[in-house]
Amino acid sequence: MADPKILETFANPAPRRDYVIEHTHHEFTSVCPLTGHPDFATITVRYIADKTCVELKSLKLYFHAYRNEGIFFEAVTNKICDDLGAVLKPRQLTIVADWNGRGGVTSRITADWTLPKRAARRR
Amino acid sequence: MADPKILETFANPAPRRDYVIEHTHHEFTSVCPLTGHPDFATITVRYIADKTCVELKSLKLYFHAYRNEGIFFEAVTNKICDDLGAVLKPRQLTIVADWNGRGGVTSRITADWTLPKRAARRR
Amino acid sequence: MADPKILETFANPAPRRDYVIEHTHHEFTSVCPLTGHPDFATITVRYIADKTCVELKSLKLYFHAYRNEGIFFEAVTNKICDDLGAVLKPRQLTIVADWNGRGGVTSRITADWTLPKRAARRR
Amino acid sequence: MADPKILETFANPAPRRDYVIEHTHHEFTSVCPLTGHPDFATITVRYIADKTCVELKSLKLYFHAYRNEGIFFEAVTNKICDDLGAVLKPRQLTIVADWNGRGGVTSRITADWTLPKRAARRR
Amino acid sequence: MADPKILETFANPAPRRDYVIEHTHHEFTSVCPLTGHPDFATITVRYIADKTCVELKSLKLYFHAYRNEGIFFEAVTNKICDDLGAVLKPRQLTIVADWNGRGGVTSRITADWTLPKRAARRR
Amino acid sequence: MADPKILETFANPAPRRDYVIEHTHHEFTSVCPLTGHPDFATITVRYIADKTCVELKSLKLYFHAYRNEGIFFEAVTNKICDDLGAVLKPRQLTIVADWNGRGGVTSRITADWTLPKRAARRR
Amino acid sequence: MADPKILETFANPAPRRDYVIEHTHHEFTSVCPLTGHPDFATITVRYIADKTCVELKSLKLYFHAYRNEGIFFEAVTNKICDDLGAVLKPRQLTIVADWNGRGGVTSRITADWTLPKRAARRR
Amino acid sequence: MADPKILETFANPAPRRDYVIEHTHHEFTSVCPLTGHPDFATITVRYIADKTCVELKSLKLYFHAYRNEGIFFEAVTNKICDDLGAVLKPRQLTIVADWNGRGGVTSRITADWTLPKRAARRR
Amino acid sequence: MADPKILETFANPAPRRDYVIEHTHHEFTSVCPLTGHPDFATITVRYIADKTCVELKSLKLYFHAYRNEGIFFEAVTNKICDDLGAVLKPRQLTIVADWNGRGGVTSRITADWTLPKRAARRR
Amino acid sequence: MADPKILETFANPAPRRDYVIEHTHHEFTSVCPLTGHPDFATITVRYIADKTCVELKSLKLYFHAYRNEGIFFEAVTNKICDDLGAVLKPRQLTIVADWNGRGGVTSRITADWTLPKRAARRR
Repeated sequence: MADPKILETFANPAPRRDYVIEHTHHEFTSVCPLTGHPDFATITVRYIADKTCVELKSLKLYFHAYRNEGIFFEAVTNKICDDLGAVLKPRQLTIVADWNGRGGVTSRITADWTLPKRAARRR
Repeated sequence: MADPKILETFANPAPRRDYVIEHTHHEFTSVCPLTGHPDFATITVRYIADKTCVELKSLKLYFHAYRNEGIFFEAVTNKICDDLGAVLKPRQLTIVADWNGRGGVTSRITADWTLPKRAARRR
Repeated sequence: MADPKILETFANPAPRRDYVIEHTHHEFTSVCPLTGHPDFATITVRYIADKTCVELKSLKLYFHAYRNEGIFFEAVTNKICDDLGAVLKPRQLTIVADWNGRGGVTSRITADWTLPKRAARRR
Repeated sequence: MADPKILETFANPAPRRDYVIEHTHHEFTSVCPLTGHPDFATITVRYIADKTCVELKSLKLYFHAYRNEGIFFEAVTNKICDDLGAVLKPRQLTIVADWNGRGGVTSRITADWTLPKRAARRR
Repeated sequence: MADPKILETFANPAPRRDYVIEHTHHEFTSVCPLTGHPDFATITVRYIADKTCVELKSLKLYFHAYRNEGIFFEAVTNKICDDLGAVLKPRQLTIVADWNGRGGVTSRITADWTLPKRAARRR
Repeated sequence: MADPKILETFANPAPRRDYVIEHTHHEFTSVCPLTGHPDFATITVRYIADKTCVELKSLKLYFHAYRNEGIFFEAVTNKICDDLGAVLKPRQLTIVADWNGRGGVTSRITADWTLPKRAARRR
Repeated sequence: MADPKILETFANPAPRRDYVIEHTHHEFTSVCPLTGHPDFATITVRYIADKTCVELKSLKLYFHAYRNEGIFFEAVTNKICDDLGAVLKPRQLTIVADWNGRGGVTSRITADWTLPKRAARRR
Repeated sequence: MADPKILETFANPAPRRDYVIEHTHHEFTSVCPLTGHPDFATITVRYIADKTCVELKSLKLYFHAYRNEGIFFEAVTNKICDDLGAVLKPRQLTIVADWNGRGGVTSRITADWTLPKRAARRR
Repeated sequence: MADPKILETFANPAPRRDYVIEHTHHEFTSVCPLTGHPDFATITVRYIADKTCVELKSLKLYFHAYRNEGIFFEAVTNKICDDLGAVLKPRQLTIVADWNGRGGVTSRITADWTLPKRAARRR
Repeated sequence: MADPKILETFANPAPRRDYVIEHTHHEFTSVCPLTGHPDFATITVRYIADKTCVELKSLKLYFHAYRNEGIFFEAVTNKICDDLGAVLKPRQLTIVADWNGRGGVTSRITADWTLPKRAARRR
């Protein structure tokens, strides 16, 4: 499974400003765990950085690592959300995954990241 | 009439997160109960899962089951909304049905699901 | 002038739900009362039904009845809004009329219906 | 029925050049002779003038004259072709009529004008 | 299987002119004979009439008759071509069928009609 | 400079309703006061009428009056806003001016009208 | 009337090659000689240069010179064709003028240049 | 490397007619042999069948077999053309491959099949 | 690095009105500091002027000054935001930078300007 | 000036087939030799290779080399055509350059390559 250690970061160059960074990968592909057929999606990562930003090339390689993984739509979207949340600990993070049609049905999964457990308690 | 028992579910893989799942069926077709002529629509199911998600292939078969049913625009949209609400008991659910033009008129019906009766009392 | 008696209704099949019905007529045409030249518009009726819904074919015939009527943009939009409001007494109603260009100018009129007089007092 | 006498002409300002004039009327409407329902089309007149050109405003009024006429798609396209051919006697003339969809079917009729009678004999 | 006897004709109103008639049905649907899943296509009939034209409503009903037939892409396109050729005996006839995507693949079949038997002998 | 006296008004036919009137002029042109080169814009007037509406043809002539005037983007947008505000005294008024590209730069100016001086005091 | 002397030329940098140069002016405007109302067009100049090319800025100024001229669609297209033909004496030249809609009608005039006089005699 | 033995065929149902079959695969992906990065293309197979047609599902599986192959744009297009030509021996065959942009450059390769060996000798 | 002194201003012609000025530069280009390859973006400057507006030609020259600078997406967006904020001291300012795709990934950075340090204290 | 020695080639993998290779560079930029302002174009190279193909990355670097060169539209198109013709000696070569608008005018230059010198003699 795609390893979040592939993701590299660099220091946020404007940490005092809440500005939005959005990277859209138009060529995501993974494999259906049931049929083995390829799936294709456009995936958008939209976040407000806190201390670190994700390095763009490493993000692309992280997405490439799903190429031969068998994983469901809902699971892959949540895993990307969890991985980027854990690595970046951003002020805000949204993942939008738009899946190509299968049998006349297209799908979109949208997930927001929130600080897990302890962060939730602090609020 | 399309039987909601066709709909299969699986356990929500991220039940602690309020994330949005959206499936759009571009090839819905049923029959006008008055004229017997076919109707065509694009139908979007958008929901926040609670304990279960709808299995995609069973959703498609559920839609196929309307193929030779005679049913009005308003009724079919509300029935889909009721059926999916009853099966998924989601945190939130919206059905949007966009009907192809007839005589120069296109139609869109949008319905939200809310917990019926007892749920309303608990609120 | 187009007679609102042409409009037929049927009982709202889901009166406990606030769902949105939207019919868009792409081929509305009337006549300019000054020049006699034809005008063309796309007219959208968007409403939340209370007790009754408008029957689609009668709505189309009601629109056809404007074909040879001389009437201004602002007036026809408000008349459609008044007629449908009076017949349906809906929970909410909006009329949007998009008029084709004349001399390089296109126009859009948007009107919401509210219960007249007595209803206003009750609020 | 729309009278070709409505059509006015003016002398071709560049008769020695074979240049193409194309007028596209986006708001043609007539009536179905069977159902009485309105039909809508976009009609293109494309011709190489010989001695005369058609005056644009009179062309528009000629098209307006079909507004309440009951006439079939094939017939109206051929009549426009015949009328403009007879009035302009152009070096070349093509009529293209694109009809709005009815019951999910759109239609296009394309007719070329050739000198009648004698031209037919020559074949 | 859809019966070509559904097709009705009327006398060509302009038999001396070679003009092109094109009807495009945007809502064709049949069933895959292997999987039973519905297929969807846009089908264009383009022809130069000789003695007869196809009546538009009967053409629509003829297309509707495929709704529950199991038939392959190549076969249905050729059958429509054969049926319309046999009924209309047109000067020229082309059928274009554009099939919705299945598993990321869309298909288009294009067939021209020529007089059978004797025409084949002449080659 | 374009004279606001060109603007004519008529009594609002539905003064008790807050409905939105929007006229979009797609062919506005004026002249750059520095270079003398023509500028082109699409200008939208969107307002809620109080006692009067602007007559459409006079609005068009008012826009035509800028054809040979040298005036900057910001100034012309504000002048149109001031002129229409003064003439209509509307409940609400917005002007949006979208200017064609110059040297790879397009511009949009959006201005809202508010009652000047005394009106501001009353609030 | 726009003076062709505005047009400047420079030596064709590749006279041994028949290559195509195409300039499209998206902001042409002149005035209707009957009504005084502005007309708008997109005008394409497409040519194969012989000895000289037209200088782009002078072409733009030549088009600007029509701004307040009253001239008909057919006439202005032919005049531009004649002027550029006379100045460039190109191997081939086509002018395409696409006029904005008036009363629901758009127009396109297409003219090719041929060497006048002597060329006409040769026919 | 993708094995042409994956391709299955069935007997052409209309061998006496020269009709065109076109399958477009929108989700082709292979790998750059130099960088290992994924490439994406839309590939169209357009042919006139002789004795056999390609079975659609086997064509899709044949395309899937390139998923992890390192192969250049020009080579893959020619290999697909050779493989389908050898299997189908069609009357005519064209492959069009449209590759997604890399560094601001998109590519399209178009290859026609001709009978090898003997056909080459005949030239 | 692009010098903010290139930016020229002029007095806001309507300082009492909060109106929005938006300039979109469609041809921004800089250089990747790692690879030296060119980057391309569309950059929008949207602001509510206080005392001064930015002069459009100087804004274009300021953007041109980045042509051969090596700078990252996040950094250049924040620098433009800082520079324009410092020069204009606007009531509100947003920079949106849409970067062309690289390896199938497009990016958008959106930054709002706020008065630095002392202004923040005053709030 | 961009040096054609940057262009690298590789052996045509299918020299017996006349197949078409098309590379489109969407981010070409050079500088106007008169004003120093940047120009932007989309440039298509379409050719039938003889013995060699152009290597894609070297083609991109060759285009990048124009970044700070002052050169006119007609000249740069012809130079690219000459350079690629000299390096590839293809069976056929076409260059299409589409230049972004300046002052409302867009331009397209299309040049075909023919073998120089001897080819010229043969004419």
